[in-house]
Amino acid sequence: MENLFVIKIGGNIIDDEKKLSSFLKEFASVKANKILVHGGGKLATKLADTLGIQQQLIDGRRITDAGTLKIVTMVYAGYINKNIVAQLQSHNCNAIGLSGADANIIRAHKRIHPTIDYGFVGDIDSLNAERLRQFIDQGLTPIIAPITSDENGQLLNINADTIAQETAKAMSKFYDVQLIYSFEKSGVLLDANDDATVIPSINQTYYSTLKEEKKIFAGMIPKIDNAFAALNNGVKKVIIGKAEELKSLMENKSGTTITN
Amino acid sequence: MENLFVIKIGGNIIDDEKKLSSFLKEFASVKANKILVHGGGKLATKLADTLGIQQQLIDGRRITDAGTLKIVTMVYAGYINKNIVAQLQSHNCNAIGLSGADANIIRAHKRIHPTIDYGFVGDIDSLNAERLRQFIDQGLTPIIAPITSDENGQLLNINADTIAQETAKAMSKFYDVQLIYSFEKSGVLLDANDDATVIPSINQTYYSTLKEEKKIFAGMIPKIDNAFAALNNGVKKVIIGKAEELKSLMENKSGTTITN
Repeated sequence: MENLFVIKIGGNIIDDEKKLSSFLKEFASVKANKILVHGGGKLATKLADTLGIQQQLIDGRRITDAGTLKIVTMVYAGYINKNIVAQLQSHNCNAIGLSGADANIIRAHKRIHPTIDYGFVGDIDSLNAERLRQFIDQGLTPIIAPITSDENGQLLNINADTIAQETAKAMSKFYDVQLIYSFEKSGVLLDANDDATVIPSINQTYYSTLKEEKKIFAGMIPKIDNAFAALNNGVKKVIIGKAEELKSLMENKSGTTITN
Repeated sequence: MENLFVIKIGGNIIDDEKKLSSFLKEFASVKANKILVHGGGKLATKLADTLGIQQQLIDGRRITDAGTLKIVTMVYAGYINKNIVAQLQSHNCNAIGLSGADANIIRAHKRIHPTIDYGFVGDIDSLNAERLRQFIDQGLTPIIAPITSDENGQLLNINADTIAQETAKAMSKFYDVQLIYSFEKSGVLLDANDDATVIPSINQTYYSTLKEEKKIFAGMIPKIDNAFAALNNGVKKVIIGKAEELKSLMENKSGTTITN
């Protein structure tokens, strides 16, 4: 099977115009099949503040009331997505921006939780891998924003890490998929404040030890759990590392590689 | 050749949740090949007001400074486009939202004008009819937002009527195209305040007379000029009429039909 890279670009890079721009230039130059999933960064929070809409987070998940949904739809699917697409086009990467609603790529439902009302937050029901493959076969590079909809046409906010993971899993039917979580840090670190303490590779056994010894930064745990879930569902490799080192991550020369 | 309807939906309908919803339901049920082009409505102006960004209009064209560009990108390509797409999906219309940057559908340049600086307003260089046809062949319905980009990745604001016209012209290579401008009025009216005074059909000669006698509402003139430009470039028919009567417009039972 051909290779496919599913690359997630994290919030802090999106907030930094220069870093984003240099990341996109490098991403555009990647010859292999690729899909980009982007998060939202602080732009949505800033806009909400300006408009006087208060934000709530539970376990790192945004509680999405109607006002917040409107903002994240505007910022993620509008401002960020179209800026990324336009920049990639200028580097001759034929990008196509997609929310989950577009071409029915991702169908979701409003999250049902026994105690917490997450508001307009979605959980994924299905992902249309055939359509994404069709776009790739047509020479297009999908750029996915973390907004989707349910069967009633209600827009929903979705965690971008989850979209990246589900996309990587679904695309494993057709490709040897490598999932890359790229962000501002050099990988999974032993010391969250020291970029030189990257752990080059983590497997299940080592991960258990690291968690027992509380050596993993709490914010990293959902990412690594997602990574193992992806590996258990057909994804060949998961790499976590610095957005500015994209090619080196793709060549396994930096970052943290997660294996079963 | 097969038929294709290029349908422009105007601002006032977009501002009215119920009317938009009922329009989209009808649009979704249209069996023929179709493309929807949407404008922006008052949402962008409202958001700009709330954020304290002042808006300027010259000849009905928005002067787009950097702050305004950010807002129209968020509102047109984000909020409005994704809401339309999600609603259409709920009616089993496999919509795909596109700015001009997506899949390189529309390439534009920043408007050059001897005396007026329009800001980030684009004029269209080329429209990728082949790609739009490919999407239609794949069962997708393109929903185009009036935002595009130039070769340097700069986003630009474009008049939605112009996009509809250029799309209709470019698609005439492959289809018998009918261009429908749908909005809040019943068609071209002899008395702008009386919806019963619809002119059923206008040709070049009659248009000249109407203009001489100043019987055409000024806001209508660019739309009709656009209509004749489209007819002179391969478009088969242009119809102007009420969004709530979409099917009747398509069947030539209401609205104003423009012919050469």
